[in-house]
Formats: sequence, C-alpha cells, structure tokens
Amino acid sequence: MKINGTPYRSVWLDADGRSIRIFDQTRLPWAVEELVLSDEEAVAHAIRSMQVRGAPLIGAVGAYGLAMALRRDPSIENLERSAAMLNETRPTAVNLKWALDRICAAVRNHPPERRAEAAYAEAAAICDDDVETNRKIGEHGLELLKEIAARKPPGEPVRVLTHCNAGWIATVDYGTALSPIYQAHDAGMDVHVWVDETRPRNQGALTAWELGSHGVPHTFVTDNAGGHLMQHGMVDIVIVGTDRVTRNGDVANKIGTYLKALAAKDNDIPFWVALPHSTLDMSVRDGLTEIPIEERSSAEVTATTGRLPKGGVGAIRVAPESSPAANPAFDVTPARLVTGLITERGRCGASEEALSALYPEKV
Amino acid sequence: MKINGTPYRSVWLDADGRSIRIFDQTRLPWAVEELVLSDEEAVAHAIRSMQVRGAPLIGAVGAYGLAMALRRDPSIENLERSAAMLNETRPTAVNLKWALDRICAAVRNHPPERRAEAAYAEAAAICDDDVETNRKIGEHGLELLKEIAARKPPGEPVRVLTHCNAGWIATVDYGTALSPIYQAHDAGMDVHVWVDETRPRNQGALTAWELGSHGVPHTFVTDNAGGHLMQHGMVDIVIVGTDRVTRNGDVANKIGTYLKALAAKDNDIPFWVALPHSTLDMSVRDGLTEIPIEERSSAEVTATTGRLPKGGVGAIRVAPESSPAANPAFDVTPARLVTGLITERGRCGASEEALSALYPEKV
Repeated sequence: MKINGTPYRSVWLDADGRSIRIFDQTRLPWAVEELVLSDEEAVAHAIRSMQVRGAPLIGAVGAYGLAMALRRDPSIENLERSAAMLNETRPTAVNLKWALDRICAAVRNHPPERRAEAAYAEAAAICDDDVETNRKIGEHGLELLKEIAARKPPGEPVRVLTHCNAGWIATVDYGTALSPIYQAHDAGMDVHVWVDETRPRNQGALTAWELGSHGVPHTFVTDNAGGHLMQHGMVDIVIVGTDRVTRNGDVANKIGTYLKALAAKDNDIPFWVALPHSTLDMSVRDGLTEIPIEERSSAEVTATTGRLPKGGVGAIRVAPESSPAANPAFDVTPARLVTGLITERGRCGASEEALSALYPEKV
Repeated sequence: MKINGTPYRSVWLDADGRSIRIFDQTRLPWAVEELVLSDEEAVAHAIRSMQVRGAPLIGAVGAYGLAMALRRDPSIENLERSAAMLNETRPTAVNLKWALDRICAAVRNHPPERRAEAAYAEAAAICDDDVETNRKIGEHGLELLKEIAARKPPGEPVRVLTHCNAGWIATVDYGTALSPIYQAHDAGMDVHVWVDETRPRNQGALTAWELGSHGVPHTFVTDNAGGHLMQHGMVDIVIVGTDRVTRNGDVANKIGTYLKALAAKDNDIPFWVALPHSTLDMSVRDGLTEIPIEERSSAEVTATTGRLPKGGVGAIRVAPESSPAANPAFDVTPARLVTGLITERGRCGASEEALSALYPEKV
C-alpha cells in the first residue's frame, strides 16, 4: 500500500541482495523509519522487540532471517539451530513456524553451497504468496461487506469494528482483516471503521494511520468502548486478524479480542476472522489449553508509548511505580463465538468440518 | 483512609468553614495536591474536569457547591438555578442529583438567612452518611468474600477483578467496590486484586495507588486482559462500583464494565456491583435506553496522561493527529449479567423485586 503516495511492501530485499528492509513499527505511526536487518540475530531482535509484528509479517521476516543464517553457515545443523532460535522469538503466532518449516523443506535437499540461494528464493516466494493470499482474502471479505451493505438503508455506511492491527503492515501487503476494507473503499463503498486502541502496545494507532493514509473513514476508540457501540447498533460487523486458528476453529488473537467476540455474540453482530492458510494450525484442537500465550514485559503495561509533548517518541508511566503488572499478549476466542473465517479460498465456518473441506491437504 | 500513615477523607471543610478541600484527582497518583474550592463555579469546574470524580464523591462535593451558592445568594431562584447548573456538570451518575435534591429539600422551608447554614449542615451529613454507608457495604461484601474463601483450598488468595476506581477517593471514605476488599485485608484474609487500567482516564492507576498505599496485593492489567484471566480460572469474583442502578437492576458504570460482565457470565464467575442507596434511581427502568451516557472530549482518547520521562505529569499523543476519536464514558450492564448488588442494607438481586424489598421507601 502507499505512504504519501509511494507504494510499499512492509518488508523488501535491500540493494545488497542479502539484507532486508523493514519499517520500525515501534516508531510508527509517529515516524516512518526504515531499518536494515542483515543477520539472523538482528531479525530475531526485530521480531522480539516488535520492530516487525503481525503474524504473516513475522513469518516472512523470519524466513529471510533463516536465509541469512544459511549464508553464513549452510550446514543442516545451523539450519536447525537457527530455525529453532528464530521460532522461539514469539510463541503464539503459528505463521513463523510455518514459514521456517517451508524454508527448511526448500533447502534441505540442496547441496550446502546452494542452500542460501534457495532460501532467499523461498523467502521471496513466501512474500509474494502472502500478498496474493491477502488480496484474495480482501475479495472474499468484500463480498461479505456487500451483503451487509445490501441489507442497510441507502446512504448508511457499513460500520466495521476491528481490534489490533491486521493491516498491510502486519502482512507483506494488503493486510488480512483490513484487506476487505481497503477493497470496499476502493470500490466506492461507504465504509467506516471503529479502531480499538489495543493496549498495551496501541496497535490501533497503526490501524488508524494505515486507514487515514488510504483515506478510509474511521474513528479511534478505547478498548473499553466496543461493547457500548455494539449495544447501541453502531457496529454492523467485527473483523479481526488472528495469530493462530486451531483445527476446531478456536482463534488466538491480540489480548481483548475475546471480549469483543462476547459483545458481538450478545448483540447478534457477525464476528469474522480473516486469515491466510499459514495461520491455520491443524495440529492443535483446543485453543484455550493448547496455544501458548506469550507473556510480555510488564513494562508495556505500566507505560504507554506515543508522541511526547515536546516532540519525539517516548513512554510515560501510567501505573504507580510500586504496582506489579501482568501482560498476557493474546487471548483465545472459542469457535462458538466466531461467525466465520475469511480465507484466500473463500469463507467458511469456524469448525473442523468446514476447515477440512476448505483445506483438505492439511487434514 | 490513609496516605503515608495520615488518615484522610477525600473532601473536607476548610478552616474558613466555607470552602472545601479535595485532592486534585487529575494529578493523582503522581502528585498528592490539595485544591481549595470556594464557590459553586469552582465546584462545577472540579466536577466537569474530574478533579473530583466517583459517583458518591461528586454528590458530596456538589452538595457543598450548592451550599456555597446559597451563601452568596440564598434566594429560592438561586437555589434552583445553581442546583440545575451543578446537576448538568456530569449526566450519568445519579448521586449528584440525589445530593442536590437533598440540599434543596433541607433548606427550602428555612428563611433565607438560615439557608446557607442549613445547606452546609446537610452537606456535612451527606458526607458522614456516605462514610457510614460505605463501611456497611464493606461489611456485607466481606461476608461474600468469606464465602468464596471458604470454598477455596487453604492458602489460595481470593482473587477479585475490578474496573475503574470505586475506592475511597471515589467516595468520601472507604469506597464502594473496594470497601469489602479493605475490610477483608484488614481482617487478615488473603486477597488479591486485578486492577483494570480503565482507559481513557486510567482510573486503574488510582485504584492501584489506593491498594498499594493500604498494602493490598494487586496486579495492574490492561482493560483487554480480564477475559483471558477469567478464562484461565484466575478470577474468583468481579466487583465494580456504579454511577446509576435502575429499578430493573441495570447498571451504568465506567465504559468497559459491560465487557467484563459478559466475560464473567461466560466463565461462570460471580459479577457483583457495590452501591450506596444514593446510586439507586427507581425513576428509570431500562438502563440502555434511559440513562444518559456522557460523551467526553475525544482528547481523552487520543492522549494518555501519566508521569513524563523527565518528571512531572503530562499527556502524550497515542492516536494519529488526523484520526477522529469517540469517547463514550460509561456503558450499561444489563441486569441479566449481574449476579447481585452489595448495598449498605445487605446483598440483593439485580431486579425490581429485590430492590423494592430492600428499599421499600423508594418504591
């Protein structure tokens, strides 16, 4: 998508053909700064510190990290060690493991001197696939939005609520949950987005920045507000992204997603989850007991980052110094609260039956 | 309660016998600063700007504001004009209207030269009543916590989740939702409190400060985290305060309360609401359609206030400059989600039948 009129992806190969460039997402939306990542340690740091974030994007960036590791040492031992190291950076999203597994499979049968090249090629393919996948998610989601628009009085916008950032900078391009919204806006549909702040890391600011840059009408609200908006008929549909969907259709996503799903259910508002195939993890069933939930630093909760009064980006303290804090970064929304899934192959229910029918090769 | 060992109320008559002193709650917990309010305009400003906040406390402070207005002009015209002006400062909590009505009734039949004196006496009585009321709420809530403790394995704390601040600084003393917690702690019960941040104004920091000052174990979490905690068996009971309870038992409280009530229901966790009689509004039935929800400045949402990196209290921008924001300050939790109410007369269900039985004089 575009920043000030210039089209970008959120990760791309640098001119040296070995390093990658990303936007430092700990600085967005306050400053648009590119970072160069040149080895697997820099990639691991970028993922851990959330300089890159978003389940599909950390998969793509992790794949490049593994290619960088193989450039240094193409042995199978290093492949496995580096893949394990990168996979441990963040535990909840399954896309990272999926991408690392894909690199491993692509290079393992090559002779050592060919492995790095093969890995870079596979990482590039992962990126291109992600873009095409998300474009298709947008097409299928657009159909859903059109159905809602058709049931509304003429002149009323379709009002979407989203949580966290599942936009183009959470992927290689287009986004997952936001892809249908971009396509709807570009198709001339009157669409409005309620953007949850998404404490503690305020990824809602990223979503607002993305939407504003693209000209999509939106309103920023606290994470507390969504239930009230739904009670008062101000939300037509909730669409969120996800970090892992289980065989049963349970959905791990940013902390607080479950609360919005409960409110949607209580108010008969459709709750949809947009995901690429790489987010589906058929190896686990029960999301609540089987998906590892990342516990991040309490400093993310006791402080908030933003633009300081005198300029620049910084953090202010929002909890008393003596108060401990907890920071579970994700929660799991049980399949029973999910109206359906929007994938690159079309829509389906959040159930083993529906997922198995759509992805028979994964069963 | 105590600050650094010294007992305080959250509002008290100044040495001049006419002005009141409060803590500037826009500065807490970062700085403990007393403010002197000497006329009804200063009181109205303090309520509107949330220098004082909390439904019971704004009732008490508003009562003093009306007494100040009568000292200047004891006419019935001024009584009614000033009461209306003060009542409009914040629309959702009913305690303010209750307190102003009580002052009006107490002074109306006095000759003009006696009205101010009578109003000050009545305002003092409102404060004393509030303290005693909240002490009793604590006693009745303590029984509830004891019942939960009795069902738990020995050595495990009773884990309470609360939203916003319904502590001693939201009342004249003791608090409503926190009163049982203080009494439990003082009685030697092992109790732990999950403290919601409560964006946009972060009253959770006030709750954490209160609890920390009193030595009550607690953990600060984002507003998004409560559902996850409840799903994983880490919450035994939710207790919140309220700004208005309707005849039907619907509960208006800080925005986001409804989401926690939904999560409590979904996880079979008791959801209790602590209130004094002054918060009960038998004149309205359906909270969702009849309680006015205050829409506050969007600047509260696009910024967050806290301690700046170089010291002092200030606000940082958390949403892009070009993004509009909405700020509904309260929501309504339907009675069907409320396990029960904790009042100064004991516990009861959230229903007209139960409320009418407990408060027959209000029917």
